[in-house]
Amino acid sequence: MPVKQPKTHLCKHYEDAIYYRDLNLVDDVLGKRGFMDIATRQITGRDMTRAEIDLIEAVMVAIMEHGFTPSAIAARSIYMSSPENLQAGVAAGLLGVASQFVGTMENCADLLAAIVAVPAAGREAEARRIVEGSRQARRPLPGFGHHLHRPDDPRAARLLELQRERGLAGEAAAALALLSKVIDETYGRHMTINATGAAAAIFSDLGIPVTVMRGFAIISRAAGLVAHLAEEQKEPSGRYIWDLVDHDIPFAGEVDR
Amino acid sequence: MPVKQPKTHLCKHYEDAIYYRDLNLVDDVLGKRGFMDIATRQITGRDMTRAEIDLIEAVMVAIMEHGFTPSAIAARSIYMSSPENLQAGVAAGLLGVASQFVGTMENCADLLAAIVAVPAAGREAEARRIVEGSRQARRPLPGFGHHLHRPDDPRAARLLELQRERGLAGEAAAALALLSKVIDETYGRHMTINATGAAAAIFSDLGIPVTVMRGFAIISRAAGLVAHLAEEQKEPSGRYIWDLVDHDIPFAGEVDR
Amino acid sequence: MPVKQPKTHLCKHYEDAIYYRDLNLVDDVLGKRGFMDIATRQITGRDMTRAEIDLIEAVMVAIMEHGFTPSAIAARSIYMSSPENLQAGVAAGLLGVASQFVGTMENCADLLAAIVAVPAAGREAEARRIVEGSRQARRPLPGFGHHLHRPDDPRAARLLELQRERGLAGEAAAALALLSKVIDETYGRHMTINATGAAAAIFSDLGIPVTVMRGFAIISRAAGLVAHLAEEQKEPSGRYIWDLVDHDIPFAGEVDR
Amino acid sequence: MPVKQPKTHLCKHYEDAIYYRDLNLVDDVLGKRGFMDIATRQITGRDMTRAEIDLIEAVMVAIMEHGFTPSAIAARSIYMSSPENLQAGVAAGLLGVASQFVGTMENCADLLAAIVAVPAAGREAEARRIVEGSRQARRPLPGFGHHLHRPDDPRAARLLELQRERGLAGEAAAALALLSKVIDETYGRHMTINATGAAAAIFSDLGIPVTVMRGFAIISRAAGLVAHLAEEQKEPSGRYIWDLVDHDIPFAGEVDR
Repeated sequence: MPVKQPKTHLCKHYEDAIYYRDLNLVDDVLGKRGFMDIATRQITGRDMTRAEIDLIEAVMVAIMEHGFTPSAIAARSIYMSSPENLQAGVAAGLLGVASQFVGTMENCADLLAAIVAVPAAGREAEARRIVEGSRQARRPLPGFGHHLHRPDDPRAARLLELQRERGLAGEAAAALALLSKVIDETYGRHMTINATGAAAAIFSDLGIPVTVMRGFAIISRAAGLVAHLAEEQKEPSGRYIWDLVDHDIPFAGEVDR
Repeated sequence: MPVKQPKTHLCKHYEDAIYYRDLNLVDDVLGKRGFMDIATRQITGRDMTRAEIDLIEAVMVAIMEHGFTPSAIAARSIYMSSPENLQAGVAAGLLGVASQFVGTMENCADLLAAIVAVPAAGREAEARRIVEGSRQARRPLPGFGHHLHRPDDPRAARLLELQRERGLAGEAAAALALLSKVIDETYGRHMTINATGAAAAIFSDLGIPVTVMRGFAIISRAAGLVAHLAEEQKEPSGRYIWDLVDHDIPFAGEVDR
Repeated sequence: MPVKQPKTHLCKHYEDAIYYRDLNLVDDVLGKRGFMDIATRQITGRDMTRAEIDLIEAVMVAIMEHGFTPSAIAARSIYMSSPENLQAGVAAGLLGVASQFVGTMENCADLLAAIVAVPAAGREAEARRIVEGSRQARRPLPGFGHHLHRPDDPRAARLLELQRERGLAGEAAAALALLSKVIDETYGRHMTINATGAAAAIFSDLGIPVTVMRGFAIISRAAGLVAHLAEEQKEPSGRYIWDLVDHDIPFAGEVDR
Repeated sequence: MPVKQPKTHLCKHYEDAIYYRDLNLVDDVLGKRGFMDIATRQITGRDMTRAEIDLIEAVMVAIMEHGFTPSAIAARSIYMSSPENLQAGVAAGLLGVASQFVGTMENCADLLAAIVAVPAAGREAEARRIVEGSRQARRPLPGFGHHLHRPDDPRAARLLELQRERGLAGEAAAALALLSKVIDETYGRHMTINATGAAAAIFSDLGIPVTVMRGFAIISRAAGLVAHLAEEQKEPSGRYIWDLVDHDIPFAGEVDR
């Protein structure tokens, strides 16, 4: 069975011109439209407003950097081994932008979508159903809690405030607030909305598909990792980390010596 | 010999605050400064002007996308095999942002630096020395020529024009123009400055170290690849490419059938 | 809450000696024990018999190579862009050893484990429950069917025959045969056990944890991809594939030209 | 200019049969020939003898594992972030099998080839020329010295001994011995031949092209990394390494707190 031929909407190149979707790169884009303006247009297929782009950039800035994370450690370790290949360090680090950290953004967005899918009158009940289900299954609630930032993730509150200031808070933001209220009531203590939770609400209200959300985290972390490797060029940490880890973790076997 | 402990300038996190270099993320950054503003600051360690950031963004937009390149083909092929892992497709594709394409930017920047390192009166002679050397060794001149865009790479001229308009054209831009003149004279025909040549001059005049230049291409291509994979979600090409290639390339061996 | 310090059993190195688990690399291993003998020992923590290693090697050989797969296309495309970095091409290709192809081995192994977990008398009923569930949900049955090899995947039958010849067929192999019988009865036509199905039964009967099975496919495909890149060095395909794909897939947008 | 259509010699698949080069996978290979037998055949295009395969396997075993190297740290860090994707951890780790460690094997092989290219009577002079050049440029000599294993890398001596025992020591092994003698004389102290030096001589004498040598290290390290990730499943180290490194490396900036 032959596979159907796909089409692309992204780019058309001629000898003397390049088009990004329907825009002539040289005449319509270069010098006129910024990086994230065109990036969001290429990714989503629509022109976003300045307020929308600003908000997306705020989310991206918020998750760009968090010190020596596993992603940064991997990037620096690989770069040490392959210092002529900046892209190898970045690629290694990006492989950590995955289910365990950024993936919670998508899982949170799914919960928000489930709440929003219910008529307004039933949303609190739906939120309770979700929270009770997680509690009984002892599952963490994606978008809530942070191993370091307590009682509140400072990034989340500010991002949600920006969303309101820009007039872009919609049903997903309301669902997140509802979920937060129900969580605090159910557990009898405050659990922070974290940065991925805020990002989930923001991307959802912008109409970004759940499967695309991770893409913005990837672009953002790519920039963060480039900064790590630029620092690694001036102040190398790779060999130090190697020594630190290799000496610290003990060998548990028995050898005949 | 113990390895010296490195330091980092990139990030400090507390329970209730995160700093990006000396800036408080929540108070000083979110909602106030854009993505590439902070990305360039994290990468280079200095605040860039709006004109500088605009110019960097123009370069990034210019190299974000060029259709079904090897990088995009790799990204889509991997994403087909691992569709819950957007980052795997992007990481695979970024491994192609390497010596053969983007690396020419660095090689061109090295040539420009060699010309600028000479007192003004000797620069044309230095350019001639470089071009003659490449000609005799039948080496391509990095930053010049394009397998598709002839006689001129439309992106390059526009990027260099923007550099002048923004008042950011410096000695590297002059060296590139000089090199271009000498090349055309030496070979007796016009050879285009390509997009990586223009990028090399622009990044050089902005004081971006040669070893960091590739980083901006990586961030830009990360965005381009996210757009490819977002399109792949709606209009899959992976299996089609597989069939196309696997059927097209013949088996050269002899088998007993 | 501090994280518990882990230990490692894999390796201990001294100035004058290296241990792989409890074996002295130089005295006990080099020249005495082969690659997969030591690899399986390092991975599983136990000494395998020659018959067990042979069978694992047979599975690995069977899935090493299948022409211009998405994995091979990605590897060759990246290698073209980064020809001094064989590891980059291999790493890109390995990212395709993921849920959609090799992952079916793990899903099949889970089904076999579900059948084996039931007392012998109930296994056929359990198999029927599984097959009916998949049929009603229109889910493919992992380990069964192949888009190319019909009516039978020639590798699967031979691998299962080898398992019997080596005396290593156990409860998982019996569960796979049972599942196959029930599938053919339920659908009223023959559906092949494929290579990943056979591999699932073989690894299960060897006591390899499901989460480790993919590891053997990774090692095997690493070898297959090295062969692709060694061929790419002599007979490059990267640029040809680029041209083929970029020209073949049409642009669907409208541009003003 | 159209690109010439390449051919492949690696694989041909039919509905009912698969060929690896000219061998029928089911009839000629499975159960008859081992993993590295077929892997070397696919990679090099020729049937190797048992002694040759054994020697290659010895080299691969020798470089499979060395504790918490940058490659293993990267693999474990990524696996922690993406635990359903064993291949992502392995791919990240393999990106470290690059110029700084395994690449020295190739550089050493180039030196050996340069010596062997000279008529026998001139080889010692050529070795002196090489060593003097490196000494004056303060360049390390690839294949010699080890940051940990002193005075001798225990793996190297044993590998070279195996090469002699198997009757496979040739001109490259002789060149390595000559180079070693000249180095010790020139520097007035003993510098060990390291594992990559021994590997370079062995692969050279087997006729493996320099550009392919790294491939065997990649396959070997793939196995080593799978063992690391199988251990990570049982005894996780990722979060511990994260804490260790993030707390240990100080922030050098000044923040207003």
